[in-house]
Amino acid sequence: MLIVQKYGGTSVGNIERIDEVAKRVKKAKDAGNDVVVVVSAMSGETNKLIEFAKYFTENPPKREMDLLLSSGERVTSSLLSIALYSKGLKSIALTGRQAGIYTDDIHTGARIDKIDSNKIKKNIKEGKVVVVAGFQGITNNGEVSTLGRGGSDLSAVAIAGALKADLCEIYTDVDGVYTTDPRIEPKARKLDKISYDEMLELASLGAKVLQNRSVELAKKLNVNLVTRSSFNENEGTLITKEENIMEKPLVSGVALDRNQARVTLRGVKDEPGIAAKIFNRLAKENINVDMIIQNIGLDGVTNLGFTVPENEIEEAKRVMNELDASKQLEFDTKVVKVSVVGVGMQSHSGVASKAFDTLAKENINIQMISTSEIKVSMVIDDKYGELAVRSLHDAYHLDRS
Amino acid sequence: MLIVQKYGGTSVGNIERIDEVAKRVKKAKDAGNDVVVVVSAMSGETNKLIEFAKYFTENPPKREMDLLLSSGERVTSSLLSIALYSKGLKSIALTGRQAGIYTDDIHTGARIDKIDSNKIKKNIKEGKVVVVAGFQGITNNGEVSTLGRGGSDLSAVAIAGALKADLCEIYTDVDGVYTTDPRIEPKARKLDKISYDEMLELASLGAKVLQNRSVELAKKLNVNLVTRSSFNENEGTLITKEENIMEKPLVSGVALDRNQARVTLRGVKDEPGIAAKIFNRLAKENINVDMIIQNIGLDGVTNLGFTVPENEIEEAKRVMNELDASKQLEFDTKVVKVSVVGVGMQSHSGVASKAFDTLAKENINIQMISTSEIKVSMVIDDKYGELAVRSLHDAYHLDRS
Repeated sequence: MLIVQKYGGTSVGNIERIDEVAKRVKKAKDAGNDVVVVVSAMSGETNKLIEFAKYFTENPPKREMDLLLSSGERVTSSLLSIALYSKGLKSIALTGRQAGIYTDDIHTGARIDKIDSNKIKKNIKEGKVVVVAGFQGITNNGEVSTLGRGGSDLSAVAIAGALKADLCEIYTDVDGVYTTDPRIEPKARKLDKISYDEMLELASLGAKVLQNRSVELAKKLNVNLVTRSSFNENEGTLITKEENIMEKPLVSGVALDRNQARVTLRGVKDEPGIAAKIFNRLAKENINVDMIIQNIGLDGVTNLGFTVPENEIEEAKRVMNELDASKQLEFDTKVVKVSVVGVGMQSHSGVASKAFDTLAKENINIQMISTSEIKVSMVIDDKYGELAVRSLHDAYHLDRS
Repeated sequence: MLIVQKYGGTSVGNIERIDEVAKRVKKAKDAGNDVVVVVSAMSGETNKLIEFAKYFTENPPKREMDLLLSSGERVTSSLLSIALYSKGLKSIALTGRQAGIYTDDIHTGARIDKIDSNKIKKNIKEGKVVVVAGFQGITNNGEVSTLGRGGSDLSAVAIAGALKADLCEIYTDVDGVYTTDPRIEPKARKLDKISYDEMLELASLGAKVLQNRSVELAKKLNVNLVTRSSFNENEGTLITKEENIMEKPLVSGVALDRNQARVTLRGVKDEPGIAAKIFNRLAKENINVDMIIQNIGLDGVTNLGFTVPENEIEEAKRVMNELDASKQLEFDTKVVKVSVVGVGMQSHSGVASKAFDTLAKENINIQMISTSEIKVSMVIDDKYGELAVRSLHDAYHLDRS
């Protein structure tokens, strides 16, 4: 098998941890696999460098930030290569440039344009473990770029796609994807498999194992992703295409998103163009709108509701107050969003109504509802968040596989 | 003027120091100069990374070491560029690769092959301060290389040469080149000017301001070097070609080299080939021989003396004992070398005899003597080292300019 392994900051957080990673890589290699490893910076390093830069200015030039921040992954990749060498393996560390990761020139948030994987392939053929500095690439002008948050995951997925790797393992300090947050519901169960789409819904809803960009890219490139822990030997969670999942669960997980605030406009004229006007303006001001609910109006007026991240609510208030439409405004930051996710919903009815029933039984009022093919999201009073998660987890028997 | 400034590890040792460096660069820029800055890694960083690597193996692969160690200068160059930007200057940080520093592929001790200075020139023309990561270059294969000890000085000199800069300022934590070590002789005086050749003799004799490689390159490229402190505003010492020094001093400085051990072979047959045999063998074993003294023999036998660095004496003992010639061997580690250096000696006699006189007056026995056009070196008992330096400093009136 050809395996791409990616180790995050805590997994390479100190020199002993890098040694542990080397042992794990050696195991995979000794088992007869070809292995490409992508590493993040040692945890804390990137933040330290950002602090250094902020000493001088709150808005350091992005090109220089990329040069600065890319150094952390160079350190870990060289150190891991040295660690592998010390264990008798042939290995080579490659920078983003040397690994052929070409990006556009949007510094600090570059997108991968293409991967020239010739150098990686050549080194694999020579029997080497290839260790790639994650998070970074090079522009056509030879400038160093970085990929933004979750960039090393993205490097790993893109490389796995380019190499048509059998597996892309993302190592972090958690065991995988759970049916819900185990800190809220101790009966939460680790999932063996989950589809890309379910993962996308769960990630955007608060499961912080993987950034959506990486899952989206894995889906696009058809990369089998596994998230698992580098701190134990537990099997992780396979994120793959729906067809690869034999028994499709009705519901895979319940997610809680606390970072929500609700905006409601009452008495909006029920005529074309109103919604467009509001949401264009919010987009222009870089306010992220999540759920949007509009119902059929009565007597030519309707209510329009939407949610934004809690930390953007002040900005949203300002914008809404500037708009003509902003006559009867209501803002509420004391809300959370609870979501039930599962590919099985597509072919089974009754999933949504069971969710509403469950919350009703607990006397939890549902303020907003939004559904997609594989998801039901509900905005509720924030004090009921944990209760709602536990009740739903029970209602769908998520503690049993 | 076009000035290349190089700041060493202590000069950029923390974020406040980098801020100080930025102020100094701004001053030079505001005075109407074009400025290229070459920086080392923050002091301690390189050693930390070497320690990390040594955790895994005493002999880490050199290619990976270069990738590892080159990260330190990338950090300081980006941070300095950000600091300059925050002070309203236009600036750009360049890696060794981006600065066009091409080297051979001898990792951890690469030699600069050529400098493609187009990118630097282009950015200077755009009014930018160019900040170059020192110590590093790139091979023709796109591998990252480093230049070994004193590598950042070498980067600065090579860039100054390629740009035909008016001045190359090397900033450290000392004020310049002194007539002797001020810790030995408090009356030691900072020199305003010194020739390349004098500096070469002083450096190899223990003045640690500049590595010889950099002075040799400066001489070859005709670069006017200034060593000065980044911790104060004192004028430094200009190292330039002899023609630029109007009043050539008889003696410029007195150096003490404690890292010396003496080897003497008594009763060596006075016939061709003996010396060649011995020194070829020592060279093959990588033992650095410094002074070599052989005198006319009596009755067909002679004595042969030479010095090696003190830490190589055990190795030298082993080699000498293996050689046929090694019958009457004498080893002495309790010796030091005192040298008197000055371009003026070339045209004035009496400099050497004054040195011998001076030591004789102090009852210091001279074990070995070696002279060059601009230097007289004497090996003496190590307990007289400081006394000899002070007496010679006085004898040549080095406290007065």
